[in-house]
Amino acid sequence: MSAFDDLLAFQRQTEALSSVAERLGWDQETVMPRGATEQRADEMAAMEEVLHERRTDPRIGEWLAAARPQNQVEQRIVDLVGRDFSRSSRVPARLASELAKTTSLAQGIWAEARANETPEDFLPTLDQVLMLKREEAAALADGGDLYDALLDDYEPDTTAAEIAVLFDAMRPRLVALRDEILGADHQPQALTGHFPQETQLRLARTCATAFGYDWSRGRIDLAVHPFSSGRWQDSRITTRVVEPEPFNCIYSTIHEVGHSSYELGIDPDYAFTPLGRGVSMGVHESQSRIYENQMGRGRAFAGWLFNRMSDAFDGLNITDPDAFYSTVNRVTPGYIRTEADEVQYNLHIMLRFDLERDLISGRLDAEDLVEAWNARFLKDFDVAVDRPANGVLQDVHWSVGLFGYFPTYALGNVYAGCLNDAMRNAVPDLNESLAQGDASPGVEWLRENVQRHGGLLPPRQLIESATESLISPEPLLDYLEDKFSRIYDL
Amino acid sequence: MSAFDDLLAFQRQTEALSSVAERLGWDQETVMPRGATEQRADEMAAMEEVLHERRTDPRIGEWLAAARPQNQVEQRIVDLVGRDFSRSSRVPARLASELAKTTSLAQGIWAEARANETPEDFLPTLDQVLMLKREEAAALADGGDLYDALLDDYEPDTTAAEIAVLFDAMRPRLVALRDEILGADHQPQALTGHFPQETQLRLARTCATAFGYDWSRGRIDLAVHPFSSGRWQDSRITTRVVEPEPFNCIYSTIHEVGHSSYELGIDPDYAFTPLGRGVSMGVHESQSRIYENQMGRGRAFAGWLFNRMSDAFDGLNITDPDAFYSTVNRVTPGYIRTEADEVQYNLHIMLRFDLERDLISGRLDAEDLVEAWNARFLKDFDVAVDRPANGVLQDVHWSVGLFGYFPTYALGNVYAGCLNDAMRNAVPDLNESLAQGDASPGVEWLRENVQRHGGLLPPRQLIESATESLISPEPLLDYLEDKFSRIYDL
Repeated sequence: MSAFDDLLAFQRQTEALSSVAERLGWDQETVMPRGATEQRADEMAAMEEVLHERRTDPRIGEWLAAARPQNQVEQRIVDLVGRDFSRSSRVPARLASELAKTTSLAQGIWAEARANETPEDFLPTLDQVLMLKREEAAALADGGDLYDALLDDYEPDTTAAEIAVLFDAMRPRLVALRDEILGADHQPQALTGHFPQETQLRLARTCATAFGYDWSRGRIDLAVHPFSSGRWQDSRITTRVVEPEPFNCIYSTIHEVGHSSYELGIDPDYAFTPLGRGVSMGVHESQSRIYENQMGRGRAFAGWLFNRMSDAFDGLNITDPDAFYSTVNRVTPGYIRTEADEVQYNLHIMLRFDLERDLISGRLDAEDLVEAWNARFLKDFDVAVDRPANGVLQDVHWSVGLFGYFPTYALGNVYAGCLNDAMRNAVPDLNESLAQGDASPGVEWLRENVQRHGGLLPPRQLIESATESLISPEPLLDYLEDKFSRIYDL
Repeated sequence: MSAFDDLLAFQRQTEALSSVAERLGWDQETVMPRGATEQRADEMAAMEEVLHERRTDPRIGEWLAAARPQNQVEQRIVDLVGRDFSRSSRVPARLASELAKTTSLAQGIWAEARANETPEDFLPTLDQVLMLKREEAAALADGGDLYDALLDDYEPDTTAAEIAVLFDAMRPRLVALRDEILGADHQPQALTGHFPQETQLRLARTCATAFGYDWSRGRIDLAVHPFSSGRWQDSRITTRVVEPEPFNCIYSTIHEVGHSSYELGIDPDYAFTPLGRGVSMGVHESQSRIYENQMGRGRAFAGWLFNRMSDAFDGLNITDPDAFYSTVNRVTPGYIRTEADEVQYNLHIMLRFDLERDLISGRLDAEDLVEAWNARFLKDFDVAVDRPANGVLQDVHWSVGLFGYFPTYALGNVYAGCLNDAMRNAVPDLNESLAQGDASPGVEWLRENVQRHGGLLPPRQLIESATESLISPEPLLDYLEDKFSRIYDL
């Protein structure tokens, strides 16, 4: 066995164990009995300690030094293992285990505080999480920027400063578009009616199938905050049902299908290697967003969905597919990121990006977070937050230690804008399929040009090679202005 | 830290990881997408390798040698870790991992062969499992009896020879009772009617609650072969629905509640130690059986269940609680162990016990198993097996390598007979509660005298101290003869 073979064999087991830990997380958020929280925290901490020990195993350093990769795939495996090894080696085992245990508990505390509308029950725990994350960031940053060190886990090769420049460029056009829309004479109707949970879930399954979700390697369950989980042969999605708002369930399902399909679409030869997963959270989000928005909220698919929903629900108040399309894309003031329309979504991200940079740098304390959130929300959205579950408690991320994650959502939107231009050029008749409830020509283009590569190419290189052009926010902004000018007669 | 403290800290992590592996097994049999079989096998193998490495870690030997246990609890922990260490150290890592992977795959192959009624698709895999199990047994037996070495994993301190003596003593009285029953003039009616799955599951949940199942630390799902899984704060049950036969779902649920309640009833101080689990499979089965049979199939609870079922299902063909009680305990010729009545159940076990001893010793080959099974079934039950799913393919056990497990079911019945005598003496008004659908006085007696002790006392000592008498099959046989003589007017 060569050093590379030894490295790979060892890595395959680590990947298997990491997949087990991820499955445990799925279990916790979907099916676990509520009284098992403490036990699960101990189980997660034990898994984390095993994983940390493996990721920092000194043999990896020796194998890396001796490995002679023979081709691009082997070279990239060596690079990614090396990157992970160097990051993991900087975080002490004690800290890794404490982080796993604290965030596992914090998630339960967050969920309860959110249900009870009591941020004061969660903020002391968030403060603990923050202290641990700052410690982790300091260990990773090695003198560099703390926030960049965390960001690097989700979107390698990008800095907060670069993202800030991108966001500054996007904000004026998004704000102008939003203000024009909200001031327009013509406003789409809201959807009203009776939408039973079981019917919504049946429709969600139909939509998942329309977007090519492979049920033999997946399943759908309910969760407080929808997510997808798992790789290779087993990538599961979750959704939620808000009875008066069926678009919530349907579009969050299509969104998670995008994530899961990315994992399921990776070349099976990469399974159990560092290439066998989505290359970054930004690219991940580009897949979920292009499924959900550029395809799912387009006029073609909306027309098909209109017919399905008219059949499934009695007494839909909207009886015309064009009006229905406007309703699907309705822009209204709102508190919740995951329910935000395409125009305002990135503004929600910008708020979180700035707040979490301040939390990590220590410029903002957990105890002042509610006030800071509410003040910033009022400034950006001209609406006062009415209750904590509509404000600072709405997202799970910070409770589980995901700092540096939020900006990747907006990056994903930018990537999706770029990919959509290329996909539409390559598949000119995509809308004809979408109008029949069949996204497969688009899904196949994405699988071929993005998904199958897994971690082989770095994020920007992957998107630029798929689109044959440089990454820019222009395609996304042009698409939004064009789409919403038509819908709102601007 | 003392050597004992070091040992315990290490062991707690091992227990947490072992609990994760068990949860993964639950996932596989309840919710896992069917296309994930191979991946799950790799994941299980990786977990098994980590666990095996920990169980054979040379530091355990050093800690054991240096430990100075201060009390009974610490002494028993040292004994149990020592026992596990010595067993695990005998099995090579390669073999442990191969066993985990092969049995994980074999389970899927078994399920498919069972569905397709094609034993020939499963037997070559069973042969692989057998070869690995024989190798494992040889490593464990260290020159002793192969089958005893496997049995020791499920029922410590008992030999196949002792069990054979016990079974030989039981068989004549069971066969005589069975023959008298089947020849009796008065035969109870079968239950007929329309029993929708959802209603059965609702009733099953009601029965689980009647037997004190703690839903905050458990849940119920469907599985091909019902089982319970997990410990401490998270012990889940499964059931199955055969629509024309609601007793199948109801009594398998009560059975699994017995298993899960044992785990949930253990002193929480023992969690994450070797004392924090049922002490043997025989004692485990005594709990499931006494819940299911001595309490669940008694006249008192049957009367309550009669009312619940009359309310839940339209047009029950039985309209009298005494007749219903007879129906619940109806003895008929049947193929399936898990559906067998209390009289014939142990005869099903004796068949398996003899066949699996022959499989392990090599006196019987996997390829001859169908023939051997069918011949023996005809001899013992005077009925020819009509199809493989009613014969050799009915049980999951052998596919997952559980050789030496079957006899513990019959031991459990014997223990349940002993415990029932003592419980009835201690709780003379138990039937009055059961008639109200409340098993709690019995459950509490069992928790106090059996369950809470976890692994503290060895199996026989535990039963004998709970019953204040020696273990004997007499109470079980007396109970059966008394109960069924009345039902059948013998």
